[in-house]
Amino acid sequence: MSVYDQDLDKCAANYAPLTPSTFLQRSARVYAHRTAVVHGDLRRDYATLYCRCRQLASALALKGVGEGDTVSVIAPNTPEMLELHFGVPMSQGVLNTINTRLDPGAVAFMLKFAEAKVLFVDRAFADLARQALAKMTVQPLVIGIDDVLEPEGEVIGQTDYEAFMTTGDPEYDWKAPADEWQAISLNFTSGTTGNPKGVVYHHRGAYLNAMSAIIAFNLGSSPTYLWTVPMFHCNGWCCPWAVTAAGGTHVCLRKVDPALIYQLIHEHSVSHMGGAPTVMNMLLNAPASMRRELPPNGVSISTGGAAPPGAVIAGMQRIGFQVAHLYGLTETYGPSHWCEWQTEWDGLNDAQQMQKMARQGVPCLTINDHCVIDPSTGEVVPEDGRTIGELVMRGNTIMKGYLKNPQATQEAFEGSWFHTGDLAVMHPDYYAEIKDRSKDIIISGGENISSLEVEELLYQHPHVMEAAVVARPDEMWGETPCAFVCLKEDADDSLTDAILIEWCRDRIAHFKCPKTIIFGPLPKTSTGKIQKYVLRERVGQLGAGG
Amino acid sequence: MSVYDQDLDKCAANYAPLTPSTFLQRSARVYAHRTAVVHGDLRRDYATLYCRCRQLASALALKGVGEGDTVSVIAPNTPEMLELHFGVPMSQGVLNTINTRLDPGAVAFMLKFAEAKVLFVDRAFADLARQALAKMTVQPLVIGIDDVLEPEGEVIGQTDYEAFMTTGDPEYDWKAPADEWQAISLNFTSGTTGNPKGVVYHHRGAYLNAMSAIIAFNLGSSPTYLWTVPMFHCNGWCCPWAVTAAGGTHVCLRKVDPALIYQLIHEHSVSHMGGAPTVMNMLLNAPASMRRELPPNGVSISTGGAAPPGAVIAGMQRIGFQVAHLYGLTETYGPSHWCEWQTEWDGLNDAQQMQKMARQGVPCLTINDHCVIDPSTGEVVPEDGRTIGELVMRGNTIMKGYLKNPQATQEAFEGSWFHTGDLAVMHPDYYAEIKDRSKDIIISGGENISSLEVEELLYQHPHVMEAAVVARPDEMWGETPCAFVCLKEDADDSLTDAILIEWCRDRIAHFKCPKTIIFGPLPKTSTGKIQKYVLRERVGQLGAGG
Repeated sequence: MSVYDQDLDKCAANYAPLTPSTFLQRSARVYAHRTAVVHGDLRRDYATLYCRCRQLASALALKGVGEGDTVSVIAPNTPEMLELHFGVPMSQGVLNTINTRLDPGAVAFMLKFAEAKVLFVDRAFADLARQALAKMTVQPLVIGIDDVLEPEGEVIGQTDYEAFMTTGDPEYDWKAPADEWQAISLNFTSGTTGNPKGVVYHHRGAYLNAMSAIIAFNLGSSPTYLWTVPMFHCNGWCCPWAVTAAGGTHVCLRKVDPALIYQLIHEHSVSHMGGAPTVMNMLLNAPASMRRELPPNGVSISTGGAAPPGAVIAGMQRIGFQVAHLYGLTETYGPSHWCEWQTEWDGLNDAQQMQKMARQGVPCLTINDHCVIDPSTGEVVPEDGRTIGELVMRGNTIMKGYLKNPQATQEAFEGSWFHTGDLAVMHPDYYAEIKDRSKDIIISGGENISSLEVEELLYQHPHVMEAAVVARPDEMWGETPCAFVCLKEDADDSLTDAILIEWCRDRIAHFKCPKTIIFGPLPKTSTGKIQKYVLRERVGQLGAGG
Repeated sequence: MSVYDQDLDKCAANYAPLTPSTFLQRSARVYAHRTAVVHGDLRRDYATLYCRCRQLASALALKGVGEGDTVSVIAPNTPEMLELHFGVPMSQGVLNTINTRLDPGAVAFMLKFAEAKVLFVDRAFADLARQALAKMTVQPLVIGIDDVLEPEGEVIGQTDYEAFMTTGDPEYDWKAPADEWQAISLNFTSGTTGNPKGVVYHHRGAYLNAMSAIIAFNLGSSPTYLWTVPMFHCNGWCCPWAVTAAGGTHVCLRKVDPALIYQLIHEHSVSHMGGAPTVMNMLLNAPASMRRELPPNGVSISTGGAAPPGAVIAGMQRIGFQVAHLYGLTETYGPSHWCEWQTEWDGLNDAQQMQKMARQGVPCLTINDHCVIDPSTGEVVPEDGRTIGELVMRGNTIMKGYLKNPQATQEAFEGSWFHTGDLAVMHPDYYAEIKDRSKDIIISGGENISSLEVEELLYQHPHVMEAAVVARPDEMWGETPCAFVCLKEDADDSLTDAILIEWCRDRIAHFKCPKTIIFGPLPKTSTGKIQKYVLRERVGQLGAGG
């Protein structure tokens, strides 16, 4: 043992398990009277928010919630949802946010799987919760949330949120977890097929990801954050914790509505927000009457999910949004990558810049490494921007694993890498570019076609609002691209599938062009992701082409 | 055991010990061709810097340096000094930077105490090193640094830095420490009295402090950092790691010279720098011929050490520097506090704003709590901005402890708080304000006098360049304030001690006014701190007043 290990142990003065709860504690002192929460006419400052979260933690503890107990919630981005992000961890419980657009069967599955001890339900989702609970034998304690901004639905449960809160002590002496590896939350993957998997986050990762997010999103001091990203999605990419650490103002939002978003941005001088590319599309295509003036410094919008089409990024920048392109998965606490701007790109033309920016980018500070491997051999592929393989990474903001699923966990972490399941190329400059979800690759006549590439092209058409491309079985080619296209409201009526296909053939290799085009609105998940599995079902009904 | 602890263990994919070495690894990939180091005409990009640090680590490992082995260095802020901040930790060794202004006896003490295995010596400090080594029986491996910008001094040692480097492997497969609590560096306290104590930092703390520094100094992406803060001082407040994490450019600087500082700021568009209040004073009082135009966005200057006088802050802002006021100790990896600006201060007048900004402020994100306690009872004093006690804190960026000094370590961490030894008041808004180092308080007629308060006043006099106040024994009052004052070059010759005392009496309570004033230059440490103990010795020679 070296001299540096003698009499130099951890003690309460120089070591504390990392937990994002300390950010709220600090902000309650440093920014006591700063507005922490805005929701309709409601305003709460940081001192009040902290006080309420302690009281909530105390109330939960009095009901027996402790380490490893799941507290589930079905709610949109309300003040209560934000409070649960602190109150539950401070009680040592595990927060399980449930996607509000799921069906009762899926919700029941999750509640049973998570062994939920308590379930908070916003009144708008009373029916969903009731139907899910009807499918269960063991019943959690149900607590209804009576949101002032929600006139619909019944406040169900043994008690309501505010009454429950009063049973707790606002000066509750909460404790950090004994071990920072302790679980803080449970997020089910959106699960396009099969049963959803329960992704477990820990306090250390949530703390580090919040620090990294402050840096990645350049939150600065006292940002104003509009809650367009659902908190049930990767805990809102950990922004309940990051924005609180930065002493920012949380502007709550029950649903993604472009008119309301523009109004709140204008009214509260929103500085930062997030959102799927679909949210950007919505803002971009909103009628002029709906738009409001943006704050003088513009609004930073972090966009996750699929790569936003270059035309959408350019359009957003034109109307005053600065677009940051992120990439991540539920398993990586949200963003693991961002497309960091390089000063040498300043000299490129627009098209070249868009090409750079459309890439998913480089790992954030808390991800130690990434690479693209050949899925069959596990070997690292050349960093040539062309060879497709699976994107893998490792670091401190990757989940503990999948709850009660050691096999899936082991597979996800095989070879000491976390396997994203996404197909990507690695560019020589260390920027990763996702080519497709593994299952989204289209193999036509032995050639791989990236459905993203075809979608990118379709988005460039002036009348196309949204596009999604999936494989359609084909007798001759094996598979061919089938495009689902939603046109803009003012689109030319004479635009037919044949014309659009011809337009594509003028622009990319013919084998990559859609053979089938179906017009109409696209099915989406609650987080705005296009549900390709629904489209695949529709294609299945079409039968094989050729 | 809860379900959240089953089959959800750490593995190489989802857990890595925190170490700042990973920041360099990442920047070498993400910012491969960005300029990492500027030194005279020398430029190195991040790919090269990483390559050299790996080679250095490999060379050290080949010489047997491993976990717990001390590698000492006597050098100013050169590229080699920066490389040692990565190369040594990557070899698992402990970096011990030595203050270049110490006497050979002190250096010998440190090398022996640290059991230095290797000693790097910049040629300018060859004599100092040789004299220190002459006092030692066990000799470390000595490696001379031949800096192109230093014409003086001999390159001593068994080999020189560049030759030593070539013995290593530039693709060395360095390892993170097995445990993030492992020591990364050893910093001796400046030790105004008695033998210096060896403060031990760990990898986890260095990593977290770097993240916190990026946020606190608002480094953003690709800052240009001028190296005015000696890296031998709290590892340059951890900025070798923070600036590297942010992909910034390190502009090296052998010594604090106002003409050179202005020139480098202008030439390289420096965005950030640090410095003791004395550095600011130097820049502020530099003749117009020496000044250069600052970059359009100004320069952020983080100032540590004593509270900068309000007039100095205001003066700096006038010429284009944004002053951030920090507070910290060697034991807290440099800054533990910063004086965060509150939006409600925007409405205050200049004097009120200066009063707010002169305070040391609030704990940074990685310090979990602070308070002021009564040193005799250990009780928390009222947060009234008036009751003086000892500032204490706890968190994750506080040293492991003092090397080979369990008693001092235990005392420092008594009652689960780290004891700063600084006397402070706590304001109702959670901002701490240092009133004095414990030994700097002057007790006159039973009244406590803050020497800082008297200094603040003296700095407001138009002819005073610098001032320091210490206690002088007094037969009647016990102690009285004795002021050492350095006048500006253009000061009025007719300004006498009597006139200056009279000027003070017009402005503060008479018992607080200096009874003695001595004109002349002030003795300083290498980091620009005024050496009050030297002044106290001079006062001792004066004998008691009264």
